[in-house]
Amino acid sequence: MKDTVIRMFSERGVDLGEVAELVLELQKPYHLTLSISECLENVEAVLQKREVQQAIITGIVLDTLAEQGLLPEPLQTLLVEDEPLYGVDEILALAITNVYGAIGFTNFGYLDKTKPGILRRLNSHPHQVHTFMDDLVAGLAAAASARLAHNLEKIVP
Amino acid sequence: MKDTVIRMFSERGVDLGEVAELVLELQKPYHLTLSISECLENVEAVLQKREVQQAIITGIVLDTLAEQGLLPEPLQTLLVEDEPLYGVDEILALAITNVYGAIGFTNFGYLDKTKPGILRRLNSHPHQVHTFMDDLVAGLAAAASARLAHNLEKIVP
Amino acid sequence: MKDTVIRMFSERGVDLGEVAELVLELQKPYHLTLSISECLENVEAVLQKREVQQAIITGIVLDTLAEQGLLPEPLQTLLVEDEPLYGVDEILALAITNVYGAIGFTNFGYLDKTKPGILRRLNSHPHQVHTFMDDLVAGLAAAASARLAHNLEKIVP
Amino acid sequence: MKDTVIRMFSERGVDLGEVAELVLELQKPYHLTLSISECLENVEAVLQKREVQQAIITGIVLDTLAEQGLLPEPLQTLLVEDEPLYGVDEILALAITNVYGAIGFTNFGYLDKTKPGILRRLNSHPHQVHTFMDDLVAGLAAAASARLAHNLEKIVP
Repeated sequence: MKDTVIRMFSERGVDLGEVAELVLELQKPYHLTLSISECLENVEAVLQKREVQQAIITGIVLDTLAEQGLLPEPLQTLLVEDEPLYGVDEILALAITNVYGAIGFTNFGYLDKTKPGILRRLNSHPHQVHTFMDDLVAGLAAAASARLAHNLEKIVP
Repeated sequence: MKDTVIRMFSERGVDLGEVAELVLELQKPYHLTLSISECLENVEAVLQKREVQQAIITGIVLDTLAEQGLLPEPLQTLLVEDEPLYGVDEILALAITNVYGAIGFTNFGYLDKTKPGILRRLNSHPHQVHTFMDDLVAGLAAAASARLAHNLEKIVP
Repeated sequence: MKDTVIRMFSERGVDLGEVAELVLELQKPYHLTLSISECLENVEAVLQKREVQQAIITGIVLDTLAEQGLLPEPLQTLLVEDEPLYGVDEILALAITNVYGAIGFTNFGYLDKTKPGILRRLNSHPHQVHTFMDDLVAGLAAAASARLAHNLEKIVP
Repeated sequence: MKDTVIRMFSERGVDLGEVAELVLELQKPYHLTLSISECLENVEAVLQKREVQQAIITGIVLDTLAEQGLLPEPLQTLLVEDEPLYGVDEILALAITNVYGAIGFTNFGYLDKTKPGILRRLNSHPHQVHTFMDDLVAGLAAAASARLAHNLEKIVP
């Protein structure tokens, strides 16, 4: 199933290296020698978790069906317009972040608000629907940061 | 949007009166004079909440698309087989229950495990897919119980 | 820290073998050959998780201080009376259950409502305060069940 | 109980006006005419919620006991050192934010990471322990923002 998730990310324009860059940006201040490959390793480890895979697959399917205009209303419009009061995307993202405990929530929120790197590109894509994707990626990067911090016994704010 | 939710429930065979019966069963031991109409009133009040509406609409759309065979794999199979390790349905249900605080979680779990009333019917339907629906209904009944308890200053288990 | 948690459990009258019995009761119907030692092994594995340790330590400290009458009001009264609308105990329990994903929520709620085995004893103790403890134990048993199910690829309802 | 919470905030050096300023900073870009008094009104409305009151009271009691050196180890040290891997403070904060749905999580994380206004003061106090308080305040401000957004049909981030 992990391979399926990586393939789906790739088809939707998300490269795991870019997710690792988010982790590096978050954690670099606390671990000066942190490398991008360690970050990628942590992203990949998070993707081993079944509940993470399920949340990602479910969210990407909803984005894709919305992009193809195949969802019934009112869901179709909620997703295409990325309605700010629609919260199911955040709910799935938090289920991902949760896997390494509550310390990841802070980084999820920070990424979701400031939209660095790949998150900005996803969020401003002119034709694609990434209502779920940007939150899933932020949740994944936050979970990988939390995992890294738990392993290194040191962390993000 | 509340009307949309009620219509979607109805199209999928869920009558709010049956949801109210779950609430009555949960709360009767603590409020001897509780009536089914008070329970229904609390179910309807929970349905006013936007985040509840969104979770229900999203879950029902996924059930319906799975029933029509329109979801891409591996999500299609996960939902049709109601894979026990798939947890996104519980995640959405908890987002509903959450709206009235953590005291609703206990009732959600109890309903989801014992499957009384309408939950049994949904869960054993031969042709329909109710992977999300049974959890959504249990979450809704648990939230209505929590709301009722908060208002009556007395509660569940 | 795991040793500290086990010691605190023991000082408060909770034996991990009894927690394992809750897991066995939950999972036996799905795994006919499941042994109590496998259940205990899963309980111990959950206790390795830092966020689980923190939630348990925090909850037990609050119970103990309440029992000694050392908490300021109104918290002292909320805990001693195990006020049914107080939800922080459920919140900590869910943080434990969460570690193995949403599939554990159902079992947490079921245990918390039906109070089998050690949970009944904790909940009806005449002098001790176990406002947090019964939820922590239910959350731990639910998490261990979820872990076991994830490993065995088969699960609880 | 709301009065108790406001009194406890005040005793710990938290003025609700400063919490309202966090809300104003978060929401101003989306509601140009938003006033500080509307923000304060939303903060006060969030404080009416019982589960919010309970989380705040529980967290402040833990901070205060830690400051007085009255907690048993290892909790005493975890709180005094504001151990970054301790996540129970975030868990309580999210229980607050949750009350208005998942849309508040983003703002919680952003505040918790960037520590504007009162959060910086709390976080860098030389003698007082605010391990819980800074998260509780960030959670409260995020919940008030979500409430405001739900009412104004427009939102953050």
